[in-house]
Amino acid sequence: MIRVGVVGATGMVGRVLLETLERRRFPAADLRPFGSGRAGAAVRFRGRRLRAPAPTEGALRACDLVFLVSSDEVSRRYGRALARGGAWVIDDSSAFRMSPDVPLVIPEVNGAVLSPRRRLVAGPNCTVTGIAVAGWPLHRAVGVRGVRVASYQAVSGAGRLALEEFYGQARRIAPALRSAEALPRPAPGPFKAFPAHIAFNLLPQVGAFDARGDCGEEVKVREELRKLWGAPGLQVSAITVRVPVARGHSLAAWVETRRPLTPARARSILRRAGGLRLWEEGAYPTPLIASGTEPVHVGRLRSGAGPRELALWVVSDNLLKGAALNSVQIAELLLKKGWLRRAG
Amino acid sequence: MIRVGVVGATGMVGRVLLETLERRRFPAADLRPFGSGRAGAAVRFRGRRLRAPAPTEGALRACDLVFLVSSDEVSRRYGRALARGGAWVIDDSSAFRMSPDVPLVIPEVNGAVLSPRRRLVAGPNCTVTGIAVAGWPLHRAVGVRGVRVASYQAVSGAGRLALEEFYGQARRIAPALRSAEALPRPAPGPFKAFPAHIAFNLLPQVGAFDARGDCGEEVKVREELRKLWGAPGLQVSAITVRVPVARGHSLAAWVETRRPLTPARARSILRRAGGLRLWEEGAYPTPLIASGTEPVHVGRLRSGAGPRELALWVVSDNLLKGAALNSVQIAELLLKKGWLRRAG
Repeated sequence: MIRVGVVGATGMVGRVLLETLERRRFPAADLRPFGSGRAGAAVRFRGRRLRAPAPTEGALRACDLVFLVSSDEVSRRYGRALARGGAWVIDDSSAFRMSPDVPLVIPEVNGAVLSPRRRLVAGPNCTVTGIAVAGWPLHRAVGVRGVRVASYQAVSGAGRLALEEFYGQARRIAPALRSAEALPRPAPGPFKAFPAHIAFNLLPQVGAFDARGDCGEEVKVREELRKLWGAPGLQVSAITVRVPVARGHSLAAWVETRRPLTPARARSILRRAGGLRLWEEGAYPTPLIASGTEPVHVGRLRSGAGPRELALWVVSDNLLKGAALNSVQIAELLLKKGWLRRAG
Repeated sequence: MIRVGVVGATGMVGRVLLETLERRRFPAADLRPFGSGRAGAAVRFRGRRLRAPAPTEGALRACDLVFLVSSDEVSRRYGRALARGGAWVIDDSSAFRMSPDVPLVIPEVNGAVLSPRRRLVAGPNCTVTGIAVAGWPLHRAVGVRGVRVASYQAVSGAGRLALEEFYGQARRIAPALRSAEALPRPAPGPFKAFPAHIAFNLLPQVGAFDARGDCGEEVKVREELRKLWGAPGLQVSAITVRVPVARGHSLAAWVETRRPLTPARARSILRRAGGLRLWEEGAYPTPLIASGTEPVHVGRLRSGAGPRELALWVVSDNLLKGAALNSVQIAELLLKKGWLRRAG
């Protein structure tokens, strides 16, 4: 039985992580939740109420496994030090994802890159996860040359304050929408979590812009997909958009293959693949359907613009497979390999 | 001065059409609105309240110009007969768009295909309009080989009942969204306008599916874009998605060019183009911003997946440039050419 620490346990991903550890019966002998140090902060785990104090290096060193589901800054403070000290560290932030010495892992895709000598492991961005899982079996079968992704990202991916801001806008505006002649009247701002109003609107920006004109999320999708698939030459273009949905990231994606691949054959490949649910023609996943579920849902699979291209629609729960579930699955794989054991 | 009939005047597009005729001072001597025959139905035009009776062929034959903004069925009933009788007919339905003898027109793109001998003229689908206007100057400059579009379509594009259904769902759900722990709880259905719940959700289906797995809207985008650009070999792939937004259709689009085109040069081409507003880097249009405005808004212009590809974000008001405004602009062009005159 393993001593498990969770840093960021009171956040949106943290709470889902605790639920996931409990639901999947992860063999945690002792679970130590850590929060931001807010007085009285607590979480529930296996029916018990646990205090969530601010983390300290001393308290974390007593753990065999630490999940970091807080900020990049907190991950940078503890990640490498704990791993050097012998703990396994599974980091959900973007702090280490592109570090060459840190494996970036989705178990169904590249669990094989895990090594007992690299104890700091990163999970990917919640937007890249869907296309990484859905496209990987196709890449293995015929080679993928390029990927284009338009995202429809839920507000919960931006954290608790963002979701509260969205809900507050919806609560204020919705009651006045009494007839088709009414239009949503946005509050003038300023806004806390987003650069503009999100309820009844779309924001084609997730993260800050770089010199090339890409926003942060678009860079993450490109770089992390290349690393996850071990395909440095993969052509990737993303247009990332925040949508007024609470939970569940969706992607409209085009996958350009090196060798021809019919939709029928792609479908038969994906039906056998791990970690995803393929929806047959005529039915399709939506964020409300995918919310709270574990698989990456793939639907609307058909030919794309050219003879070597497929179009697809991918939905996954950004808090589960996009974050907490993937972290737990990495830990489960470490257990299975016998690398994660009680130290003391 | 022209005698103008409007069939479907009480609908969502019809009302915006009347506002547009008034705002742009269209020289209508006499405006005759027609509705579905609902008792007491009326509209406002130039400060007056006008009854909107059911249309009859006799009443429509007295018009020099008839706007059809009702259903495909109503357009099929009157379109060809009125045009044969000498009236100009501008049809916003999909009934005639792909008929070889009917011009499909966006004035800024292909106004030159209008002819005094073809008095039945179609306006395009509201989703194709944005990419047709934004991509046309690039196609003329360097040739476009392929277009990929993921749509984010507003509910008003599906009509009044759809918008009322969406607003009803938002009004019922929003008040309970009091904390970040809450999740939207959809009503179980059945639904009137859509196959599933639309508030706080996404529906990757607009129209019925065909044997290839495309939905109706995706077929329209492909076929209408080819016809508008006069480019039968254009590779087009669309993934069309309804989003919980009231007004304003958005597109994440990739444009693959035949000859190389840098984002900087594309920007200088689009800055000079008609009917669109180019947003410079760092700023971008949203549906709430584009709602009620005339231009097609283009933002987030940058390199795409390959060296001959651009990515862009396009937003236009689906009721204005996507429907009513485009129809009025066609009529204005007919006036300017001297082809549309008072008959009697």
